[in-house]
Amino acid sequence: MLNFDFYNPTRILFGTNTIKKINDLVPVDARVLVLLGGESARKNGTLAEVREALGTREVHEFDGIEPNPSFETLMKAVELIRAKKLDFLLAVGGGSVIDGTKFVAAAVGYEGDAWEILETRGSKITHALPFGSVLTLPATGSEMNNGGVVTLKATQTKLPFSSNLVFPKFSILDPNKTFTLPARQLANGVVDAYIHVMEQYLTYPVDGRVQDRFAEGLLQTLIEIGPLVLDESADYNTRANLMWSASMALNGLIGSGVPQDWSTHMIGHELTALHNIDHARTLAIVLPANMQIRRAEKRDKLLQYAERVWHIVEGDEEQRIDAAIERTRVFFESLGLPTRLCDYQLGAKDIDEIIHQLEVHKLTKLGERRDVTIAVSRQILEASL
Amino acid sequence: MLNFDFYNPTRILFGTNTIKKINDLVPVDARVLVLLGGESARKNGTLAEVREALGTREVHEFDGIEPNPSFETLMKAVELIRAKKLDFLLAVGGGSVIDGTKFVAAAVGYEGDAWEILETRGSKITHALPFGSVLTLPATGSEMNNGGVVTLKATQTKLPFSSNLVFPKFSILDPNKTFTLPARQLANGVVDAYIHVMEQYLTYPVDGRVQDRFAEGLLQTLIEIGPLVLDESADYNTRANLMWSASMALNGLIGSGVPQDWSTHMIGHELTALHNIDHARTLAIVLPANMQIRRAEKRDKLLQYAERVWHIVEGDEEQRIDAAIERTRVFFESLGLPTRLCDYQLGAKDIDEIIHQLEVHKLTKLGERRDVTIAVSRQILEASL
Repeated sequence: MLNFDFYNPTRILFGTNTIKKINDLVPVDARVLVLLGGESARKNGTLAEVREALGTREVHEFDGIEPNPSFETLMKAVELIRAKKLDFLLAVGGGSVIDGTKFVAAAVGYEGDAWEILETRGSKITHALPFGSVLTLPATGSEMNNGGVVTLKATQTKLPFSSNLVFPKFSILDPNKTFTLPARQLANGVVDAYIHVMEQYLTYPVDGRVQDRFAEGLLQTLIEIGPLVLDESADYNTRANLMWSASMALNGLIGSGVPQDWSTHMIGHELTALHNIDHARTLAIVLPANMQIRRAEKRDKLLQYAERVWHIVEGDEEQRIDAAIERTRVFFESLGLPTRLCDYQLGAKDIDEIIHQLEVHKLTKLGERRDVTIAVSRQILEASL
Repeated sequence: MLNFDFYNPTRILFGTNTIKKINDLVPVDARVLVLLGGESARKNGTLAEVREALGTREVHEFDGIEPNPSFETLMKAVELIRAKKLDFLLAVGGGSVIDGTKFVAAAVGYEGDAWEILETRGSKITHALPFGSVLTLPATGSEMNNGGVVTLKATQTKLPFSSNLVFPKFSILDPNKTFTLPARQLANGVVDAYIHVMEQYLTYPVDGRVQDRFAEGLLQTLIEIGPLVLDESADYNTRANLMWSASMALNGLIGSGVPQDWSTHMIGHELTALHNIDHARTLAIVLPANMQIRRAEKRDKLLQYAERVWHIVEGDEEQRIDAAIERTRVFFESLGLPTRLCDYQLGAKDIDEIIHQLEVHKLTKLGERRDVTIAVSRQILEASL
């Protein structure tokens, strides 16, 4: 097992009727900015519930944080907070709104150009406004971690950042809030969480037995509930299990003490930036090809994954690995996520541009061994045609 | 899944050479009390390492916190802290030292009789001194939770308490520190962690899939590493896996959103108080009998446990449950922990006294359904003869 430093102070209030607890969690004299994405929280009553819980506190709203939140939009929220002298933020939405709120929390008091926060991946953050979140879309895990991704619209650059100063003080996870979500977003959430786990699990063995078992448990849970979640009659517990799986998939726990990959994410980010494909959908394209191209390097973990997650015990080792990759692909497809570039009308001619962006962003040594060079990324993209 | 409130702000520094990081974690101007149990930390060099990491800070030491730490001893530490005006505590030891340090941290500034802290199970704690821990004995999970148990020697009363104010600020987990432990303590640690998981797992199903998978993962890990840990040639990773399993077994995570039992612990506490049997050893006696007596109430989870943890698929349901209970008993015995009262020269004649203590301590409605009455506790004790 590798050495590690685990810290996660976010308080989680999980379950039915938990939004009203905001009243106990936000300081009584707080001047609050509620940050929102699209119209859904306003339309489905979640915003009204949040405002009721906030009672007589001074509350302002900031609408319109887009999927893949942009630096340009977020800086408008920063201006509003400075102008109104607000001191507590409340994100109401999914991963994009929460990621954006983290950036805003750090940028408000930042001396210098806030873009530096992203250029330095968060390492220059010295303080941040306190904030909480009300999660409406289970997927990214942002509600229980210290990271985010912000896009500079001008250049279509997606930059991740993290800091122990931007953990949410609390996150409210009420699974009932997912009942109005479109199937596409739920399916994306299942796959996003699944691939978050895979990035931390499918590397090479270091005898991290608890981490492996936890990762496998999350994958098994997501495989079980994936089809159930898409059923419109999905019950509360199915949604609750999705919500908790997605949080646990990326809160630092399963990645502590083990190697991590993240090359699928890095390549996927370029697909979103260039072709506006949903984040989870880019991952569903890249992961199966990534497993295929790097099967030698990931051999031991692929065999463990085949056996423990998919219960594949027939055939020789190569056949079991083939079967595990195929089952993974079929699982994503069964949820309505295509797994090939051609499904998005992208072909061999488009690969050069993606590769160019990886080079521009200096993503030339990816993966748990830093051996996913530009040449390997190209192979992965070619295998995903 | 049940509603829950999860919060755990303890920072974990895990691995080789992590003790030196204390220097970054304790305020530079702190006036420190190091709390210790027996002689081992002094003899094996751990205390010296800790003192070196603390550098030029003012450091005092308090020796002699016993297994099942006593109110009487801990109040002497409280007096010392008040007299010397110390402001940071550092527990160096196992669960008893860390439990004791939590109590001391809360008692130092407590207005009124500190015994009230225990009488009210911690609910009256309004502030506590900050403290960290250096774990030398993996077992109780105290290094990553907010609870403790303190014994009033005068009446042999063991009382648990908890408060979000007594989470360690940090805990240092260096598996190398376990290499000098006697086999008996390691075996106790494995069983203690195992039964912590069982108290939160073996109840009734509420469709908490992540919690169940995580619990099963910890049980499987402990079953795998149990025999390895006792081998004197046990390698670093085996010890590391034990250490992390024990922390994860009782840090609030696997018990969030699911029913919890804890009747085995409550009955076991009386055995320790009356007959001075090691905590883990009392649990190894009570759990198999508890499973047997309450097999009807725990039926669904017993079958799940049999299949997923022990891979028992042969036989009818009753046979599979029998086999799972037997495998559990054999596992404890294989680690050198007897599972019968008679192994400690206790017999039917001793049960009345144990039952009397349960009544005195008002432990008359135990378990996940509060249906472990005194009569059921008696049946459990009779089944453990």
